[in-house]
Parts: sequence; structure tokens; C-alpha cells
Amino acid sequence: MGTGVVGESIASALVADENYVMMGSRAANNDKSKTWSKNAGRYASTGTFTDAAIFGDIIFVCLSGEYALDVVKHLGDDITRNKIIVDVTNPLDFTKGMPPRILENLGNSNSLGEEIQRLLPHAYVVKTLNTVNYKLMVDAHLVNDGDHNLFVCGNNVDAKNKVMHLLVDNFHWRSDSVIDLGGIEMSRCVEAIVPFWVAVYQKLGTPLFNFKIVQ
Amino acid sequence: MGTGVVGESIASALVADENYVMMGSRAANNDKSKTWSKNAGRYASTGTFTDAAIFGDIIFVCLSGEYALDVVKHLGDDITRNKIIVDVTNPLDFTKGMPPRILENLGNSNSLGEEIQRLLPHAYVVKTLNTVNYKLMVDAHLVNDGDHNLFVCGNNVDAKNKVMHLLVDNFHWRSDSVIDLGGIEMSRCVEAIVPFWVAVYQKLGTPLFNFKIVQ
Repeated sequence: MGTGVVGESIASALVADENYVMMGSRAANNDKSKTWSKNAGRYASTGTFTDAAIFGDIIFVCLSGEYALDVVKHLGDDITRNKIIVDVTNPLDFTKGMPPRILENLGNSNSLGEEIQRLLPHAYVVKTLNTVNYKLMVDAHLVNDGDHNLFVCGNNVDAKNKVMHLLVDNFHWRSDSVIDLGGIEMSRCVEAIVPFWVAVYQKLGTPLFNFKIVQ
Repeated sequence: MGTGVVGESIASALVADENYVMMGSRAANNDKSKTWSKNAGRYASTGTFTDAAIFGDIIFVCLSGEYALDVVKHLGDDITRNKIIVDVTNPLDFTKGMPPRILENLGNSNSLGEEIQRLLPHAYVVKTLNTVNYKLMVDAHLVNDGDHNLFVCGNNVDAKNKVMHLLVDNFHWRSDSVIDLGGIEMSRCVEAIVPFWVAVYQKLGTPLFNFKIVQ
């Protein structure tokens, strides 16, 4: 779900490993998704958000924070029942200057991850990948030989395990680098660090960095 | 300012390096500060918050988030004029379960660091140390041989430089580990990551860890 750099990066990485990927967008004949699909080869296809949600076993939500809930609400609980939703989206508002803010009513005691789980109560929402740059999401080796951390949260342990395997097998994350923080309410914590990520990005001048927990 | 573990840890570390430290508390004859002072030797003394603010060139605010602004308001701008205020405090609310929340009106588009600067416009507020455990604050070597990061923000460059020297000289932080994120509004970012810090603490089972930025 989503044709931006995040959606394209994830879709391309999965297609490269010979997974079938349908890139979902608002309109089925979206130019960006059509171009992507043409270049990505036979494992790639395109469709509406609904088409993609029906197609996939694992649905990556790669939308801008302000539209994500509208799209998810439109999908509805029926077609996402028992599916894994990987929520990569950050509820950021860049319109009021730096540092960016969390969108109203989506911070502190709430989060986008929780709202998506609330809208799709029979799906298994897993929040992850939202704390790193889109290039790093799909190739953890781009930074410090892959030695840095990623966080996962969600209410369903099996779903989290499947996503963690995907992160290791397809996106080259070290299995001991991926930290399970708990239930989907921990989305609050991993979404709240993204304005800090932006501040560090501004300071370093490159988005190719990450946080490593050291003891 | 403050007789909790954070205030005591910072006061003891500074006294150990032969700096004169007055520990400030609400009542001058606070038992905890008297006991600390007796054990800490001739560089240590105690007083009210106001006594301590008049005494010090550098004032460490080590209060609980919910009381910090009351204390600072009571001090007022006059006695803190041209002084450096190191704000170590986190505006956290643990009363509503985990993860902790940021206190109302002190998150997202605001922060405790900014509120303190607003209340004391002629002081130089520097936000730092709030992202690590109190033991690590004063001895960076306790974790990963000191190889991890600390963040500083504030509006006055000279004040930030003085604080960064103190961190290096007294608290054993590596000078290239301390990252200046910009003006005091960046307190929003470093305060917002503390619920995440708490989540990682719960996961690891030890507060002796920190974040290292890797590229």
C-alpha cells in the first residue's frame, strides 16, 4: 500500500527475492505503480488498495501518516481478516517547521499502529521499520555491517515472528538485532522517536545511520 | 536542585572532583540532603532551592517532571540571570501504566526544556543527560567503554560548550560522543525518546545501556 519511496523500496526488495508483490494505490492505473511494475518483472503487479489487500498475505502499509487511516478504514476488517499488516508509516506533521510533530491525537497515549489495529481488529498489525531510512529498511548492511537495531511490536506473537523472519531473510537484518518491544501499544514509543531521528539526520547530513543499543 | 538519585549522583560526582556543590531542596533542612552533605565532605553543602540557585554558576535541575516548573517559577528570572541551567528532568507520567506518557501540554510542540527557558529568559538553559540512567550520566565508561552518544541542546552556544566540557572533564563522556542538536526547542526530541528508553529498559532488564549512532 503506497507508491512512494518506502513502498517502492520494499516492493522491489521482495520482488528481487522472487516474491509476488502487488503494489496498491488509490487508482489502479497509477503511473508510478505501473512504471514500477513494468520494470520489476514478472513477480510484480499493480492494483487498487483493495486489490492489493486481497492479494497479499502480508500487507505493508507505506502511506503518508495523514492518509493512512483513511485508506485502512476504507479497506475494512473483512478483507484483512487473519492477514499480517506491517505498519511502516509515521504520523508526522512537517507543516509547522522543525522538529516535525506527531499528528494530532496520534501521539503520547495513542499511535498510528494502535489506530490501525483498532480499525482492523481481526488483522495482525506489526509495527516495524518506521525508525530507519527506506534504503536501510530493505538492506540492513548499508550501515555498520548490519550491526544496529530494529524494533518490532504487535499483539500476535506468530505474526511478529513471521515478520522478523522476513526482515532477516529478505532485508538482511541480523536476527539478534531485531528487538520485540511488546504489544501494539509500544508503537507509541517507536513512533515518538522519529522526530529525534529527523534531528539526528539534520545533524549528520545523511539518512544512512541507525541506533545501536550498547551495554 | 533535587535530592533524588539523579541529583545525588550529579552532586557526588562534582564534589569528588573538588567542585563546591550546594544541594537544593524545598526545605533547607531536608534529611536526604543533610545526610548527603555530611558524607560528601567539605565541598558539599545544602540549602533551599533559592539558596542553591544563588550559590551555583551552573544549576542542575534534577526534579521530578511534575514539580519542576513550580520550583523554577518560584526561583524566578532575577537570581538565575546569566547562569547556566542544566535541565536533566523528564516530564513523564507513570500513573497511567506502561509505556509512560509525556505530561500534558509538555510534549510534541512543547517541552520541559523550553518551558524552563521561557520562565527564566535570562538564564542559559541546556538540556542534556535526560536520556541515560543516573549512574551512566556521571560515568560514561560504565557502558561500552564510553562509546555511545549523548545529546545537548540550548540557545546559547557558549553555555552548551561549557556544559559539554563539564560532561567530558567530570563525567567522562568522549567529546565526539556528545552531539549538539540545536536550540532549546530540540528538547522536544530528546524528551520524546524517553518512553522508548523505558521500553528498552524493560526489555533488557538493566538500565545500564545507551544508544550509539552508527553509520
